[in-house]
Amino acid sequence: MREVNAAGGTSLAVSADVSKEQEITGAFERIRRELGDTAVLLYNAAMRPFGTLMETKPSTLENTWRVGAFGAFLSAQQVVASMLEKREGVILFTGATAGVKPFPTSAAFGPAKFAMRGLAHVIARDLGPKGIHVAWINVDGAIDTPFIRQRFPQIKDEDMLKPSAMAETYWHLAHQDPSAWTMELEVRPFKEKF
Amino acid sequence: MREVNAAGGTSLAVSADVSKEQEITGAFERIRRELGDTAVLLYNAAMRPFGTLMETKPSTLENTWRVGAFGAFLSAQQVVASMLEKREGVILFTGATAGVKPFPTSAAFGPAKFAMRGLAHVIARDLGPKGIHVAWINVDGAIDTPFIRQRFPQIKDEDMLKPSAMAETYWHLAHQDPSAWTMELEVRPFKEKF
Amino acid sequence: MREVNAAGGTSLAVSADVSKEQEITGAFERIRRELGDTAVLLYNAAMRPFGTLMETKPSTLENTWRVGAFGAFLSAQQVVASMLEKREGVILFTGATAGVKPFPTSAAFGPAKFAMRGLAHVIARDLGPKGIHVAWINVDGAIDTPFIRQRFPQIKDEDMLKPSAMAETYWHLAHQDPSAWTMELEVRPFKEKF
Amino acid sequence: MREVNAAGGTSLAVSADVSKEQEITGAFERIRRELGDTAVLLYNAAMRPFGTLMETKPSTLENTWRVGAFGAFLSAQQVVASMLEKREGVILFTGATAGVKPFPTSAAFGPAKFAMRGLAHVIARDLGPKGIHVAWINVDGAIDTPFIRQRFPQIKDEDMLKPSAMAETYWHLAHQDPSAWTMELEVRPFKEKF
Repeated sequence: MREVNAAGGTSLAVSADVSKEQEITGAFERIRRELGDTAVLLYNAAMRPFGTLMETKPSTLENTWRVGAFGAFLSAQQVVASMLEKREGVILFTGATAGVKPFPTSAAFGPAKFAMRGLAHVIARDLGPKGIHVAWINVDGAIDTPFIRQRFPQIKDEDMLKPSAMAETYWHLAHQDPSAWTMELEVRPFKEKF
Repeated sequence: MREVNAAGGTSLAVSADVSKEQEITGAFERIRRELGDTAVLLYNAAMRPFGTLMETKPSTLENTWRVGAFGAFLSAQQVVASMLEKREGVILFTGATAGVKPFPTSAAFGPAKFAMRGLAHVIARDLGPKGIHVAWINVDGAIDTPFIRQRFPQIKDEDMLKPSAMAETYWHLAHQDPSAWTMELEVRPFKEKF
Repeated sequence: MREVNAAGGTSLAVSADVSKEQEITGAFERIRRELGDTAVLLYNAAMRPFGTLMETKPSTLENTWRVGAFGAFLSAQQVVASMLEKREGVILFTGATAGVKPFPTSAAFGPAKFAMRGLAHVIARDLGPKGIHVAWINVDGAIDTPFIRQRFPQIKDEDMLKPSAMAETYWHLAHQDPSAWTMELEVRPFKEKF
Repeated sequence: MREVNAAGGTSLAVSADVSKEQEITGAFERIRRELGDTAVLLYNAAMRPFGTLMETKPSTLENTWRVGAFGAFLSAQQVVASMLEKREGVILFTGATAGVKPFPTSAAFGPAKFAMRGLAHVIARDLGPKGIHVAWINVDGAIDTPFIRQRFPQIKDEDMLKPSAMAETYWHLAHQDPSAWTMELEVRPFKEKF
């Protein structure tokens, strides 16, 4: 679905199962064909199953890793070639506190978010000196979305991250001058414990 | 010295030795009298002696701590009372990689920057839920100033942080929505190893 | 292969491809049948391919994760049930600096070791209070083995970890009193930079 | 006070106010005179005041730093010269979780323990390659001492670190082979959250 957005830019929604190499490849081929090279990649996809080690099926561990880390790897591979040619570009990975200090019930989610953070570190050290800004954002809390409000009705307004507030920080990261790049940071509701 | 700046705001330069309690107290009294309550505190002061453990005098350790950590503590105490009343305010501490992974020759500077980071964590956990945004910024590299250019003439342009680029990130932090605050981040030239 | 070792204990070598669920299950079934329940699990398996993001095949990322993290998960699941019954047991995961601060050429190895570290944190927080000691050991350097000596002949004796020295620390961890457990530590040759 | 201990070694108790340079110097002079050079320095001293930023007097911040970090620096300086000559020796600093993730009420204790950890990092990187093993131990919990039992009578046995269990780990660190040194680790009761 292609449309002209409020800012006069063109947006294009492309569906793909990020855990499948072929679908990622296909999606980025279409993006390249219709919109050209990617200037900013924001990788956001996640599965968030709850469960301890003994409650988690091996297939759940694998799928969560596939969505959270493998898809990030595949997507980064799709955009980096043209970024390297131009010596510029931005890659932002959305992480979580589970990638730093996971709960006991994050047996699948924790390792996936750790893997994604490890990948962000690897490619930041590799691509930064070549002009590509890589950052990992720890979103430390629940995001104020209809899904979260429905599933966790007890969460108060002040305990959720506003998407527009998060977007300000992502926007800022995507526009930092190469002389002062941020690689890792968190965004967190002011009342959230850490 | 008081003057009207380009943006139409008023600026006031007040000199003080940040390692001395009385001078800090006096400076903030004057600031309160002339400009009112502090909305944003940016604590930037540092001494940066080079030397290993055996090359460092105890008085150097102490003075470096006094400028880097004690002064930050004293300054924060001066501004927090009115921030608590309004339930808003911003406190930004300028750190360095020495506060995370110090060189062997940072026997005085490392412990001082660590202490400042510890203080930032303490007050962020204390004051955040009360509406005051505290952040610690790791400035990971040399800043492009006349002093640095003169002292380290071999440093290339691309290896230095531009003050205006850093200022963008400080500005961003000072304006983040309380639903998505950053407590700790780094700014780093794109070629800098980490 | 089953044999009586110098200490009078019985040892049993069981081969298995740790990246395959069925082989892990089979191996642990045989171990249970021949030696009984596992008191200490030491997960050591790793693949260590070198390559940046653009040099790494998706299948390499996946296989490295499978050996380094998925196999650790599967193995832990095999031993935890009986440990929980007894409310005692030890699980030690061998990590690497790539799980904390990976090289740009660790596009597959870094995310795998991060994932393993994430898993160690999850299960330590889950199982520790239930009497099972989980630790992650960062082996920060090359281990003095015939393979390493042959592949990197330039490495000096003093730059390698002696297996017997590492074993002392693993032994110590496996025997710590529950009142003073270590969850994360590194072992590193004295000259190694960090 | 000098006495022969159970192991046939000689012990000597020397009192000193660790926050005072002259007393530290005097104490180590006496130790050198009566026992010879120091093989292992274990720095344990701490003040642990509770209080937020606004509840903490500047003098409390300073004294806590003086005991926790300045004294460690002074003591290390006293023992390192002879260790460097022999190219061997051990320096162990007792830290706390406040040196990593401090409470809001650790306005003085947090910065002091951070400073001590920063110092440990600096001297580990400096002295390690010269044969001196430096480690920082995060004692993450209350130690089972008469003082703690009296002050916090509600703490259960299982929530405290046994001094003998801690001693095993200190002993292990002091005897690690230089090919596999640990620089940073924690000891924590098995039920303690982290």
